[in-house]
Amino acid sequence: MDYYRAKRILSQVKIIDIKTGKKIILLNKEVAEENDIYIGQRVGIKIGKEEHAVIVDLTEELVRKGEVGIFKDIAEEYGLKGGEIVEVFPLPYPISLEAIRKKINGYSLSKEEIESIISDLMRNRLSEAEIAAFIVSSQIRGLGDEEVIHLINAMVNSGEVVEFKEKPILDKHSIGGVAGNRTTMLIVPIVAALNLKIPKTSSRAITSPAGTADTMEVLAEVEFSAEELKEIVEKVNGAIVWGGGVNIAPADDYMIRIRRPLRLDPQGILMASILAKKKAVSASHVIVDIPIGSSAKIEDFSQGKQLGKYFQRIGEMIGMKIGVVITDGSSPIGNGVGPSLECRDILRILRGDKNLCYPLMEKSALLAGKLLELSGKATRNQGYEMAMHVIKTGKALKKMKEIIEIQGGDPNVKEDDLPLGSYTFELKAPRKGRIKHISNKAISKVARDAGAPKDKGAGIEILKNKGDVVKRGDIILRIYSESESKLGYAIKALEEFKPVVMDKILLEEML
Amino acid sequence: MDYYRAKRILSQVKIIDIKTGKKIILLNKEVAEENDIYIGQRVGIKIGKEEHAVIVDLTEELVRKGEVGIFKDIAEEYGLKGGEIVEVFPLPYPISLEAIRKKINGYSLSKEEIESIISDLMRNRLSEAEIAAFIVSSQIRGLGDEEVIHLINAMVNSGEVVEFKEKPILDKHSIGGVAGNRTTMLIVPIVAALNLKIPKTSSRAITSPAGTADTMEVLAEVEFSAEELKEIVEKVNGAIVWGGGVNIAPADDYMIRIRRPLRLDPQGILMASILAKKKAVSASHVIVDIPIGSSAKIEDFSQGKQLGKYFQRIGEMIGMKIGVVITDGSSPIGNGVGPSLECRDILRILRGDKNLCYPLMEKSALLAGKLLELSGKATRNQGYEMAMHVIKTGKALKKMKEIIEIQGGDPNVKEDDLPLGSYTFELKAPRKGRIKHISNKAISKVARDAGAPKDKGAGIEILKNKGDVVKRGDIILRIYSESESKLGYAIKALEEFKPVVMDKILLEEML
Repeated sequence: MDYYRAKRILSQVKIIDIKTGKKIILLNKEVAEENDIYIGQRVGIKIGKEEHAVIVDLTEELVRKGEVGIFKDIAEEYGLKGGEIVEVFPLPYPISLEAIRKKINGYSLSKEEIESIISDLMRNRLSEAEIAAFIVSSQIRGLGDEEVIHLINAMVNSGEVVEFKEKPILDKHSIGGVAGNRTTMLIVPIVAALNLKIPKTSSRAITSPAGTADTMEVLAEVEFSAEELKEIVEKVNGAIVWGGGVNIAPADDYMIRIRRPLRLDPQGILMASILAKKKAVSASHVIVDIPIGSSAKIEDFSQGKQLGKYFQRIGEMIGMKIGVVITDGSSPIGNGVGPSLECRDILRILRGDKNLCYPLMEKSALLAGKLLELSGKATRNQGYEMAMHVIKTGKALKKMKEIIEIQGGDPNVKEDDLPLGSYTFELKAPRKGRIKHISNKAISKVARDAGAPKDKGAGIEILKNKGDVVKRGDIILRIYSESESKLGYAIKALEEFKPVVMDKILLEEML
Repeated sequence: MDYYRAKRILSQVKIIDIKTGKKIILLNKEVAEENDIYIGQRVGIKIGKEEHAVIVDLTEELVRKGEVGIFKDIAEEYGLKGGEIVEVFPLPYPISLEAIRKKINGYSLSKEEIESIISDLMRNRLSEAEIAAFIVSSQIRGLGDEEVIHLINAMVNSGEVVEFKEKPILDKHSIGGVAGNRTTMLIVPIVAALNLKIPKTSSRAITSPAGTADTMEVLAEVEFSAEELKEIVEKVNGAIVWGGGVNIAPADDYMIRIRRPLRLDPQGILMASILAKKKAVSASHVIVDIPIGSSAKIEDFSQGKQLGKYFQRIGEMIGMKIGVVITDGSSPIGNGVGPSLECRDILRILRGDKNLCYPLMEKSALLAGKLLELSGKATRNQGYEMAMHVIKTGKALKKMKEIIEIQGGDPNVKEDDLPLGSYTFELKAPRKGRIKHISNKAISKVARDAGAPKDKGAGIEILKNKGDVVKRGDIILRIYSESESKLGYAIKALEEFKPVVMDKILLEEML
């Protein structure tokens, strides 16, 4: 009712020499008051015959009555040079806001309502407060399975879809929080070497010292379009690319901007976000790794199992076969933590080096094996052997070289070519004993302070892991950093968070 | 854990010639990435020995590495001229965010937690998304009475408090939504004429065609400091000022910026917001008017009664005696709708003009009477008579003149001096009949389109009200506007929303 017809404010464009990265225009405060337009309101701007939605910011001086301030980046996008006459007008209350209010009031949302939220999100028609209202109400009220399905479909439709002629299309997902858990870079070449397609999109680190995309980037390019991803997979069966570059299910990336500072991950939205990225690459068979541990994202076994069942239930509803493995996430998996150091682990395993990291190899073979069983390539309980065979015969290495090469990297890269920070610090065992625990969270914190993932050569090499017996003076871990000051920060974090806990042998003295 | 020690980024100040009205600084995107600072994050900035909290915006070009962009208004506030070296550093996760997360998870908040939210709100340490998270979770989870009390106290402490030596201090509040419901401008002079203190703060219109502050502004100044408000009331017992100018309970004004676009008014927050403004002027006896009607804010009688009880319960807990009257809010109360037209109603009533608006006079005397009874000035059921007597003997007019004068207006103002728009339109009865209903919402919409409250002389004069019998051609209402185009908008709104509904006499013809 408020906007039954739009009053049109004719305004002359004044270019403001700033890029804001947001779709904001500047109006004179008095003009806004006269037209009942408030700060932060969505309005329309008509340029020639095109209409765009933008947010209003107010100014008393910079923009006079009769003018509209347009920031440089918007000006470029809309092809404005200054001096043009445009129309500014209030926009109707977005349908999506009615849907968000419905969720606040505890109702389930229809397909159309969820589509309206994703569509308005993509068109910049929802403010940060409004997106927060959707996230908070989804957290409190919960999202039903049908709503999650609608959300998945709406997210998939918000971006590009990669389609293949044949099935199956394989994929995997790991719930994060475990340091050095770089299984993707082994699973992809194993699966692809067996002539199955696996178009893997991965994330960059947000709060961890390395995402798969950051790690793969040490060896090859990771930014490809949806079309390029398809081409790569058509040629060599596998790819490891950055999901953020592919423009698949981009709606999720918009929401993460709000979810992150609020530290809110409503289960339904998280589920939709993960599975939309799988559906957008046409995945038919997906293995999900849920690591459990006191310093991992999920601490409790039954919680992990519940999540696993949730994955399978939603998967079934969208025609995606999902296998779940719950794994030990109590300590870091790989020896290396940080992009280069993690790559070194991968290359050593593929090459069969005598110093290879067994836990990472075994976990990767386990996951790959279950995925092979899920897709019907391997018979029940034969997947692990098949995956190990692919590694041990060098077929996985050969495939990885093909993937590196097609993604623009050097297929003959050696461990010694990988960048490593030249500032190092060694943590030595203060006494004889057994390593009881290594905290993922504390290791991640130290590795980030050392410079990872931004500095590819920064991170931590773990030389003694959980369960190992050490004697006084043994090196437990080594920090690598590319600058002395970052090494200093990392050492301070090491002292503060004490990632390594040793068993006490002597519990009490009663002399 | 994320910010156990702050890395300090030394940066040279670059002044950006824009006023944003928000505490935002600009950082170079690369610098932010290197330091794990994301867009929209709160950081600290240390200038000399002082530290301030600001929000980060990112730029790729405008600010180089080693620089920090400071907008003009912040530069003025912090005394920066450009070129200074300042420190930028991440701030710890605000305690208030933990409190907001607790509310999201359904827990009650302690005094300290609620204080942290209001304090961080006042210090610009909460983003719009975070404030929205608090409002949405308060709406869904609800606020307990104790939480509302904490909120009232925290809001009161966020601003100035007006204190008086004697008691009682009287006050009133009307739930909005009824056009022409300008009782405050009669209740204040009635009460003050009886030597009781009533330091009334009122709001400006947000979505209505006139708030009491907008209307009083036709007659006198309304912007006064807390100290001036106190002085005025000490001298003449009554005042009618704009609450937004007094700096009482300002925390609420911050929240309204978010509540308004979301159209969310969680009951507990609304209650706290209303009563904090009363407590901040030391009110001891308050009358609350709850109008009920299909086009008012509250449509249902039992809902109104519940709200009334809620007012009384919370009032008792903070030592404030609250009387509640539930009134007929089905149609506009005054003849005038819009600042000048409403003033005309007030002056006519005070002067005893033959064209005075009886419903407005009676309702005002009823409310004033109940307030007098509540405070012990009048005995039970004698308040109305006492109030009417004050009006009819001219004592209320005399007092109003004193208030107008002390607030800088002309005490001898006549109705004819009031500005009235010269563009008018008359709605005439199309046939004989009885007025069945006049919609508050539709009347407000038409009056706003005519220019109210910004144009003081714009609005609607209602000549025939609910229940009146009219014959064909009788003028039902007259629209006043200060410009032809706005009159045009108002006429269109009149046609679209049809605020006047007439009884059908002939229901069906069977000839």
